[in-house]
Amino acid sequence: MTSRVLASVIDFRPIAAVLGVLLAVLGTTMMIPALVDVLAGEKDFIVYAATSAITVFVGLSLWLAGRTGEVELLGLRQAFVLTTLSWVLLSFFAAIPFMWSETRLTFADAYFEAMSGLTTTGATVISHLDDRPPGILIWRAFLHWYGGIGIIVFAMAFLPMLQVGGMQLFRAESSDKSEKVLPRAAQLAKGILGTYVALTFICGLAYLLAGMDAFDALTHAMSTISTGGFSTHDASLGYFHSAAIEYVAIVFMIAGSLPFLLYVRVLAGDFSRLFANTEVRLFLGLVVMFTLISTFEQVRGGIAGGETALRNALFNVVSLMSTTGFVTVDFTHWGPPTDALYFILLFLGGCTGSTSGGMKTFRLAILGSALVQHLKRIVYPNGVFPVRYGGAPVDDAVVASVLSFVFLYLAGFAVVGIALNALGFDLASALSAAITAIGNVGPGIGPHVGPATNFAGLPDSVIWILSFGMLLGRLELFTVLVLFLPSFWRR
Amino acid sequence: MTSRVLASVIDFRPIAAVLGVLLAVLGTTMMIPALVDVLAGEKDFIVYAATSAITVFVGLSLWLAGRTGEVELLGLRQAFVLTTLSWVLLSFFAAIPFMWSETRLTFADAYFEAMSGLTTTGATVISHLDDRPPGILIWRAFLHWYGGIGIIVFAMAFLPMLQVGGMQLFRAESSDKSEKVLPRAAQLAKGILGTYVALTFICGLAYLLAGMDAFDALTHAMSTISTGGFSTHDASLGYFHSAAIEYVAIVFMIAGSLPFLLYVRVLAGDFSRLFANTEVRLFLGLVVMFTLISTFEQVRGGIAGGETALRNALFNVVSLMSTTGFVTVDFTHWGPPTDALYFILLFLGGCTGSTSGGMKTFRLAILGSALVQHLKRIVYPNGVFPVRYGGAPVDDAVVASVLSFVFLYLAGFAVVGIALNALGFDLASALSAAITAIGNVGPGIGPHVGPATNFAGLPDSVIWILSFGMLLGRLELFTVLVLFLPSFWRR
Repeated sequence: MTSRVLASVIDFRPIAAVLGVLLAVLGTTMMIPALVDVLAGEKDFIVYAATSAITVFVGLSLWLAGRTGEVELLGLRQAFVLTTLSWVLLSFFAAIPFMWSETRLTFADAYFEAMSGLTTTGATVISHLDDRPPGILIWRAFLHWYGGIGIIVFAMAFLPMLQVGGMQLFRAESSDKSEKVLPRAAQLAKGILGTYVALTFICGLAYLLAGMDAFDALTHAMSTISTGGFSTHDASLGYFHSAAIEYVAIVFMIAGSLPFLLYVRVLAGDFSRLFANTEVRLFLGLVVMFTLISTFEQVRGGIAGGETALRNALFNVVSLMSTTGFVTVDFTHWGPPTDALYFILLFLGGCTGSTSGGMKTFRLAILGSALVQHLKRIVYPNGVFPVRYGGAPVDDAVVASVLSFVFLYLAGFAVVGIALNALGFDLASALSAAITAIGNVGPGIGPHVGPATNFAGLPDSVIWILSFGMLLGRLELFTVLVLFLPSFWRR
Repeated sequence: MTSRVLASVIDFRPIAAVLGVLLAVLGTTMMIPALVDVLAGEKDFIVYAATSAITVFVGLSLWLAGRTGEVELLGLRQAFVLTTLSWVLLSFFAAIPFMWSETRLTFADAYFEAMSGLTTTGATVISHLDDRPPGILIWRAFLHWYGGIGIIVFAMAFLPMLQVGGMQLFRAESSDKSEKVLPRAAQLAKGILGTYVALTFICGLAYLLAGMDAFDALTHAMSTISTGGFSTHDASLGYFHSAAIEYVAIVFMIAGSLPFLLYVRVLAGDFSRLFANTEVRLFLGLVVMFTLISTFEQVRGGIAGGETALRNALFNVVSLMSTTGFVTVDFTHWGPPTDALYFILLFLGGCTGSTSGGMKTFRLAILGSALVQHLKRIVYPNGVFPVRYGGAPVDDAVVASVLSFVFLYLAGFAVVGIALNALGFDLASALSAAITAIGNVGPGIGPHVGPATNFAGLPDSVIWILSFGMLLGRLELFTVLVLFLPSFWRR
């Protein structure tokens, strides 16, 4: 039997069991848009109900087929397969409502929208959001929210074990060094889920107080904390023309970019730990620096002044660095220096173990230190110059891991960018679309993918490449790419 | 005295002595364009004669001031200072004729042209080459030729000592592991110079036989072997409309991209060593692969067929990979897939210890192996997966060095590209200009810097950034950047 042959290499049963549970949860939550559309008198409720039934059925079947009572024995290679398959498979089922409901997307577009949601990217192919039924809008926001909590648990429980991109640096603080990853994941997930729900609730309340209606407050709270970026309006947050709403968004986009494990500790009483964290300090420092530059550029260019310039700058810098991708103004009309600045921001990302994408601040810090130490070593070949992070020396294996990650990240960006260029995009659109996908940001730069437009109407080939780019970036590249290694599948 | 204070940190005397000799040689060779212009009846001969006198005078003064009889004791830090200062200072004196002769360039443009010559880049700011006096044309070709031999000696004698970008891999084969670099450099230079002169002579003869006149044959031979790219015609090699000339160029651009140390060994009798060399095989393999792709693209796009398509492809691929930058047709009109392909080629470069620029083939090989091994290590944390090059395991320090180099190379490219974009270039022009400068190629892609145009008329700010980019790339970045390290200048 085929399944026995495969099973002799990697036991797929625990993978199927976990996937089944994740699918069943996804399917169950499809009743939310169904309910919302029933209340709004939209006939799309039937689509969600039907898809919900299908998804729950497939989920339970997988769970029944796979459960062995030994799920906690999930090994390293199974963890890789499970992670990639989660996003690939969940996106498939999450895409169904986009095809069957009144948005009537093609499969390629629907899958893109679902992947964009679950990877908290926030790039959309759906136009006329303001006139859409509420079901589809809350479904998009929920995909962000579900993907956001998923990625935090993945980053804190799986990545340190998988030694991906220097994440073993966080092994000590996030795990008990066990080789088996699932029990720790479940334990961590509980504390983090509580924080995540609480932050979403507070964010929604703040939006409500700032003037949003309840529906907008809820959907935007979900896509803010998850640093996703889907809005219920074509003009994104620019629709509200409200400084108060923008400041709420700024605060909670930052909240979504900080390490969630830290919140759990802070809630345990030690508030000072939040700002003592090296990565948090660096991230906030970069936000301040880029905000000042962008404010200066606006004043110098006569685009805006005073509080408006500062708020524009802060909003855009935080939106891009947190990889949320909310938009208030089309900053690409501000001219070249801002173009270049915001292009850099698309690469950075927030902190490890947050919902944000990008390269992550701790990697930038290690990379910077590695380059300086390497220069010193060239000058003084006999000197000892350890790479440091937060004052402490970093293991060589971690440094090599970070350098490999950064290179692979840039290589991935280049390959996707060149592929898009080969498909007919101009170079600026191609490169910014590539990095906005891999960095899970949302908007790019240029006529096809800039902040004033969306991804509707792009050819299927482009859409599939971008969907793959979002998956690659969200799972920190290595997690996906190891699956293409022939030796991965050998016994 | 100030000079004593400086001397207490780094002894500048041996540096001044060597620089003096290099300048005196440059000044002496300025009599070549002087002589050529006398024969042609051009009055610019006086410019060369005067500049020659100034340069030789400054050179001899520096030599007299610096000589201590202990030049062979040049240390590590002195080698760094000497290398960077050589290109910076020689470009200054080499630029004078461009300002004073009938080309009447501004200082920024003249310095750019001289730096482009001495770094064997081949980007030019001079238009109407066909109508220029022969003196200026042979001066440009000679700058390539002088820079070419300079870079080979630098790469083989200095870089392995300086442990720049993994070059320590070549330490065993190029040196006696002495800490003092100059005697070895002189010894190596002799064998390599012989090969270099011989190859130039053969190349010139081949051009002559293929139909060039003696002047064109000589100048193009100098800029072919040095993989420079300056031509005596605005249309570059396209001027000749000769398949024979293009094939000669292809053969000798490849010859200029192979490790010159290998020629010395081959001439010593062991011809098989040339094609047994890992880097040579990889380089030629890449040439074949990209040529086939480009041929296919031309046939598919209905641009050319048969021998023409193959020759176009081979010529352009070799011209870009060898970082020569000769042009026959404007390939940027062939549409997006070729754009993307040729954009990649701008990064690669030839072999180590050749006159070509770029990242160099051995680094690409080590990088590729490092990424694959890293993926394997993620899957099997307890396995041992050494990075390999040419079948042999590579030391971890070399791998780290190569990864740092590649990252710094890409970072340099990004910084220069973004700076050019900030100065108003569109993104495609900015990025391709950045990489064509750092890679010492010559032409970029796009309206400002494409193969059908030149760098004339660009603002001074852009010109200075590109000049710095050429210097950075030619000296493998680290050599220049260590000078900016505060600890470099400490005792």
